[in-house]
Amino acid sequence: MALQDQSIFENASCPILLPHDSRIVMGHGSGGRMTRDLIRQVFLPLFSNPALDAANDFASIPSQDGELIISTDNHIVSPLFFPGGDIGRLAICGTVNDIAVSGAKPLYLTAGFIIEEGFLIEELARIVSSMKSALEESGVLMVAGDTKVVEKGKADGVFINTTGVGWRSNNFIIGGANARPGDAVLISGTLADHGIAVLSARGELALESSIQSDVAPLNGLIDTLLHTLPEIHVFRDPTRGGLATTLNEIAHQSHVEIVLDEKTIPLSLPVKTCCEMLGFDPLYVANEGKLVIILPEKDANAALDILKRHKYGSQAASIGSITYGKKTRVLLKTLIGGTRILDLLSGEMLPRIC
Amino acid sequence: MALQDQSIFENASCPILLPHDSRIVMGHGSGGRMTRDLIRQVFLPLFSNPALDAANDFASIPSQDGELIISTDNHIVSPLFFPGGDIGRLAICGTVNDIAVSGAKPLYLTAGFIIEEGFLIEELARIVSSMKSALEESGVLMVAGDTKVVEKGKADGVFINTTGVGWRSNNFIIGGANARPGDAVLISGTLADHGIAVLSARGELALESSIQSDVAPLNGLIDTLLHTLPEIHVFRDPTRGGLATTLNEIAHQSHVEIVLDEKTIPLSLPVKTCCEMLGFDPLYVANEGKLVIILPEKDANAALDILKRHKYGSQAASIGSITYGKKTRVLLKTLIGGTRILDLLSGEMLPRIC
Repeated sequence: MALQDQSIFENASCPILLPHDSRIVMGHGSGGRMTRDLIRQVFLPLFSNPALDAANDFASIPSQDGELIISTDNHIVSPLFFPGGDIGRLAICGTVNDIAVSGAKPLYLTAGFIIEEGFLIEELARIVSSMKSALEESGVLMVAGDTKVVEKGKADGVFINTTGVGWRSNNFIIGGANARPGDAVLISGTLADHGIAVLSARGELALESSIQSDVAPLNGLIDTLLHTLPEIHVFRDPTRGGLATTLNEIAHQSHVEIVLDEKTIPLSLPVKTCCEMLGFDPLYVANEGKLVIILPEKDANAALDILKRHKYGSQAASIGSITYGKKTRVLLKTLIGGTRILDLLSGEMLPRIC
Repeated sequence: MALQDQSIFENASCPILLPHDSRIVMGHGSGGRMTRDLIRQVFLPLFSNPALDAANDFASIPSQDGELIISTDNHIVSPLFFPGGDIGRLAICGTVNDIAVSGAKPLYLTAGFIIEEGFLIEELARIVSSMKSALEESGVLMVAGDTKVVEKGKADGVFINTTGVGWRSNNFIIGGANARPGDAVLISGTLADHGIAVLSARGELALESSIQSDVAPLNGLIDTLLHTLPEIHVFRDPTRGGLATTLNEIAHQSHVEIVLDEKTIPLSLPVKTCCEMLGFDPLYVANEGKLVIILPEKDANAALDILKRHKYGSQAASIGSITYGKKTRVLLKTLIGGTRILDLLSGEMLPRIC
């Protein structure tokens, strides 16, 4: 999703006045500060309603015995095929995960394809086949679709929108606004694998890289965690904008301070090396198969046990906590003993990553 | 929607073998024969399930007291602004109508924007404002969204996916498979206004044109019809591919023959003139605010009375009937007294129309 971040501002009903000929720039798609501002300026003043204003990656529609959960995401990744996945697997997993992090069971997906004239039908078939595998793994049904074609040069291969519908029973109250002081912050594994894998597939890295995207459906893992530890407060998948952006969203939704301990944050050596050489901060790089879990400290070890036994959680770690700080912000205790604020990025670090 | 037309073929489980380097052409987005074949070749063998196979413009998910209805549509119209509407109004009405023609009440929409770098934010705001008006008119809530940006030249202004969720009570059984011999075929007004209005906005017509798109939300009209005449068998909005394509879909879903009487089909004089000059068949041109109604002949006059009193039905007409013919096809009794088969188009007549 991402008419995201919109409830971060208290005065969202007062849109910023824009210069007459303001134009969209790549940073408006970053998921960071510019995306938030665009939503605040253009979308929120007109579309504001409780479901959108909750600013989760899903909308919740209350019903008799639970809630209908809805989420939508456009996928524009470039290149379409990358180590560890492709736009098809990404399109399924992205929306399955956005539904699952609500604590809901993802049930149905729709897929909308915008295809550039001249695109190889064999490649389309590879993408569709990859979607099928991810659907089977996640147990979700594709129920409706749409196919549109635009002239050569008017799109970039293929763009895929997926929209998902799930059901959350009344037993679970999960959401970005539920983090509480004293909670632990867990991550299900190493950071930045997806972003760096996509970047390496562009051939823009000077070095050979064996880095694979982590793109995966997390609904199975979430289901196991939730049924063992029903007191979990927040699930979130740190995609566009990375862990730092995700935790900023949660800090603002829950009005809490989050403190991370840099030395506990899992990073693979190749990703760490790439990030150092290229000047990327892995805390802001997209993941597509990682889960942030915020839960009472007393349950942290039990959650880590479950995570480490699961194929998508083997490198899970406890990386921080929710504190009694007065400010809604994210702090990082650095390796060298200092503390720095992890803010939203103002522009775009890695475009076309998801 | 349009993983459409997929149940037209009995042997869909046996995909056509494609030449090695087949490529997507504009006709694959036409909504006609090539779209159907692409779906048969690439999508259906992998995604086939009862909800998709029903081949309506919506998916139906049975539940306790009714059905959840889901539909998705990408909007890629060019130009973005045209007489009578813009991509924003189109994106809302298109999906509202796809839900409403199932007999369901459309409730929630999601919107996914893919925006080209350099796009004027003022124009985006105009589009969003137009979406808001259409949402208000239709009484549907926007609950989730996504905004992505691609580099200049990698998209064409803005593309919008809308996905809708509605609820159909068990009282109504509406669908393309329900047409029965003896039924009347009604249309809610003049044909081809949308397609010709968009075409004229491209500046490709040699003549000055006052033709306005008919783009409108039809859920109010449908609701009135359905609650007065609960025996209605089929609603369908004849969008991409026009009336002829829509009726072909229905003929194949219901295994019936449909016979139209050309002299009863409403056309405005400017549209008729444009189509004659440019060589377009208005029966294949897209509409975005028109409704096909198929219902027992005994109820036809009552339906026409309701239609003619409604702002979106003032030029409604009875244009044909479902007959006891042995073939599943659509026939047109022409003005000069002959009969011709209205088949699916094999390619694309007017690309980028919706």
